[in-house]
Amino acid sequence: MKKSCCLALCLAFFTTSFLSAQSPNDTVFLRRLSQEILRHGKAYDWLRELTKGIGGRLAGSANFTRAVAWGEEKMKEAGAEKVWLQACLMPHWDRGGKDQASIVRVDGKKTTIELDVLALGNSLGTEKPVQAEVLAVADYAELEAKKDQVKGKIVYYNYGFDPGQLDPRKSYGLSGAYRRSGASRAAKYGAVGIMIRTLTESVANNPHTGGMSYVDSLPKIPAIAIGPRDADQVWEMSRNSSLVVKMHTHGKFLPDAPGHNVIGEWVGTEHPDQFITIGGHLDSWDVNEGAHDDGAGVVHTLEILRALKALGYKPKHSIRFVLFANEENGLRGGNKYAEEAKAKNEKHIFALESDEGGFAPQGFGFTAKPDQMAKIQTWLPYLSPFGTDVLEKTGGGADIGPLNRLLGTTLAGFVPDPHKYFDHHHARSDVFENVNKRELLLGAVNMAALIYLVDQYGL
Amino acid sequence: MKKSCCLALCLAFFTTSFLSAQSPNDTVFLRRLSQEILRHGKAYDWLRELTKGIGGRLAGSANFTRAVAWGEEKMKEAGAEKVWLQACLMPHWDRGGKDQASIVRVDGKKTTIELDVLALGNSLGTEKPVQAEVLAVADYAELEAKKDQVKGKIVYYNYGFDPGQLDPRKSYGLSGAYRRSGASRAAKYGAVGIMIRTLTESVANNPHTGGMSYVDSLPKIPAIAIGPRDADQVWEMSRNSSLVVKMHTHGKFLPDAPGHNVIGEWVGTEHPDQFITIGGHLDSWDVNEGAHDDGAGVVHTLEILRALKALGYKPKHSIRFVLFANEENGLRGGNKYAEEAKAKNEKHIFALESDEGGFAPQGFGFTAKPDQMAKIQTWLPYLSPFGTDVLEKTGGGADIGPLNRLLGTTLAGFVPDPHKYFDHHHARSDVFENVNKRELLLGAVNMAALIYLVDQYGL
Repeated sequence: MKKSCCLALCLAFFTTSFLSAQSPNDTVFLRRLSQEILRHGKAYDWLRELTKGIGGRLAGSANFTRAVAWGEEKMKEAGAEKVWLQACLMPHWDRGGKDQASIVRVDGKKTTIELDVLALGNSLGTEKPVQAEVLAVADYAELEAKKDQVKGKIVYYNYGFDPGQLDPRKSYGLSGAYRRSGASRAAKYGAVGIMIRTLTESVANNPHTGGMSYVDSLPKIPAIAIGPRDADQVWEMSRNSSLVVKMHTHGKFLPDAPGHNVIGEWVGTEHPDQFITIGGHLDSWDVNEGAHDDGAGVVHTLEILRALKALGYKPKHSIRFVLFANEENGLRGGNKYAEEAKAKNEKHIFALESDEGGFAPQGFGFTAKPDQMAKIQTWLPYLSPFGTDVLEKTGGGADIGPLNRLLGTTLAGFVPDPHKYFDHHHARSDVFENVNKRELLLGAVNMAALIYLVDQYGL
Repeated sequence: MKKSCCLALCLAFFTTSFLSAQSPNDTVFLRRLSQEILRHGKAYDWLRELTKGIGGRLAGSANFTRAVAWGEEKMKEAGAEKVWLQACLMPHWDRGGKDQASIVRVDGKKTTIELDVLALGNSLGTEKPVQAEVLAVADYAELEAKKDQVKGKIVYYNYGFDPGQLDPRKSYGLSGAYRRSGASRAAKYGAVGIMIRTLTESVANNPHTGGMSYVDSLPKIPAIAIGPRDADQVWEMSRNSSLVVKMHTHGKFLPDAPGHNVIGEWVGTEHPDQFITIGGHLDSWDVNEGAHDDGAGVVHTLEILRALKALGYKPKHSIRFVLFANEENGLRGGNKYAEEAKAKNEKHIFALESDEGGFAPQGFGFTAKPDQMAKIQTWLPYLSPFGTDVLEKTGGGADIGPLNRLLGTTLAGFVPDPHKYFDHHHARSDVFENVNKRELLLGAVNMAALIYLVDQYGL
């Protein structure tokens, strides 16, 4: 992460004088933009409305529909010239009730040790509780080694975050494999349910939900995440004793539900047929307020529009501000947006997403060609006063990914400080109180500055 | 802040290959050191003991004495070869009771609007409440312009943090002048008390205490800080109406109290007579647990010792780990440490302090000669994987400042992310729950790495 930064800064250093001499107006404008956002930003108040006024907003839920109406209203309030809703059908998963699990037997002796759990998103529940002996494994390698012992068991995966990993996003990538695929990997050998150590390094005993999927040809067994302290307990006990766990989840899919991307458009003065997209996703999981994930991205998007409008900016390219539907368990909104752009033969030169939380900014990650990266890196002197010091060579966002795949659009993902994100990500604690106003606004400052530079100088 | 970083990275870039080729062992050792701290660090558990087990520990209080005993024990537990207490006399200010203020009259009409306030540290209370009309001013310039109206009034200073300021430490520096000197500046013109807008950008209505001092020749009037929302109210009302406020504080000085620096020493193998000092301060204000300020610095100090010991490190220079007494309202510990070092003619080559909180690391600020800065900047490739990207040309710490003034010691201050520090600094919310384990440990990683490099290569 820091290596690319180092190179970027070196390149940037040699172009600083050149750029500064060439464009003092940019420096002045970006300074005004940062002050407009930090002094008069509405992002924090809007986030309070979205999280406290509406709350969790899983695709298909009544709250998601309320969020669309709210987003449409805010897009107008922020100053979009044209606002519309882009319809798409979304999967409609419903948790169906309280997820429960407890250790009911240890070495044959009855007990009741309640565990704090959440069913994984998209997982299917059962009519009656599932009760079975636990086979605890450290990882997939141990599962494979013990595949003959799996039949009829509940498999527990203890694969957690490695605190020694310097970038927690890597820990998430590695341990996320168990959430996404752990159920079918165990069902293949006859497991009747799975439990995973929840994906976090937090010390709080919070389980985290999040998307999973089944292999269609295998039994669709229930799947839960266990809070970290309970996970410690299960792991320790299961290495010394035989545990029987009873788990009961109620997840089900209802018929696909109508949903919408909320789109605000601002027509460019020089290249009205070339589009820049900025977005976050409006949906969240059901167990929290979706404050960092991705209320922050939603209000970043609105704030950038508001602030540029407030300064009387006239974009050269057309800019679209998009609140995407259904990132968490289907990506139908992002797919729809790109498909329609392709069908209409639109030219999308750049898309930026904020979907890693509202923490203090570190920079951006890009999916860009080498010559574009080189150009972007010359902008670092403009961005660094606001906190950006990382310009990574990989990055983007789930919702804007289809734009790159279908249209070859250059992508960027906003990269905030990652160290606390996974404390709250998909957990009950992803609430408004855990977002800091100043950090949230600083994110919008850095994103707005990047958008300005792309709009002014292209890629 | 970022400009010096940019230069540092450029310099660093050109020396990376050279250094890496020369010292792969350093890279390996620093990686091991980071993993030792992140995986096995005790800093967070020690911070829990200090904050929850002892709590606020103002100089002179019984809790401070308990903290010294705790610190001595932990210093041994962390592995110091020799541990001793260095005695010093400390001022003993006592809050004396609950600080109170309310608006009791608006335009002559009786009312009761309670304000959330804290007396400023070192301020003196009054036997009876002080009740007077409020003269609200934006800043010292307005005070001077209205000096003829001050007599008999309570002066309210509305000078707050500017959210448009990119570095909140600058906001603190500017607005801190009102906390430190506002009382005597107003007393000079006959004010009977002062109130300040509390020093924070936080949205919570928390007042923040912190040190002030009087000009001895002027009346010593009471002084309080008002929570941000109450401050907004006072400011708005006072611009349209005449307000009378009643305030009652109880601060007093008791006789100077015995205190101690806790010192752990590790004798160097090559230069036992040359000292490197690492420290934080053991005292805190009375209204909170002193978790970020400066429990974090205390446990950083202990953790660096523990981790280096755990890896079997043998320092070339002698390293002192110091928990300083009385930073908040006297600096008697820091002064004592430097005075004794001078009296003994000790050679102190470097001192590092952590006193800006336990947030995610950004880097370090230095008080160093240009050739030393140049050398330090070549170390950036070693530090950047752990989060350091700023090596500023100013910095140090209050407790180690006297070492520089008396002995010319090179100083460094650990610089964590500053954006949330002033939400909690000197306020009731500076508690254990507001410190994140991973961020705290990452601070220790960066500090330990810097200490290793100074010890290996000198300055």
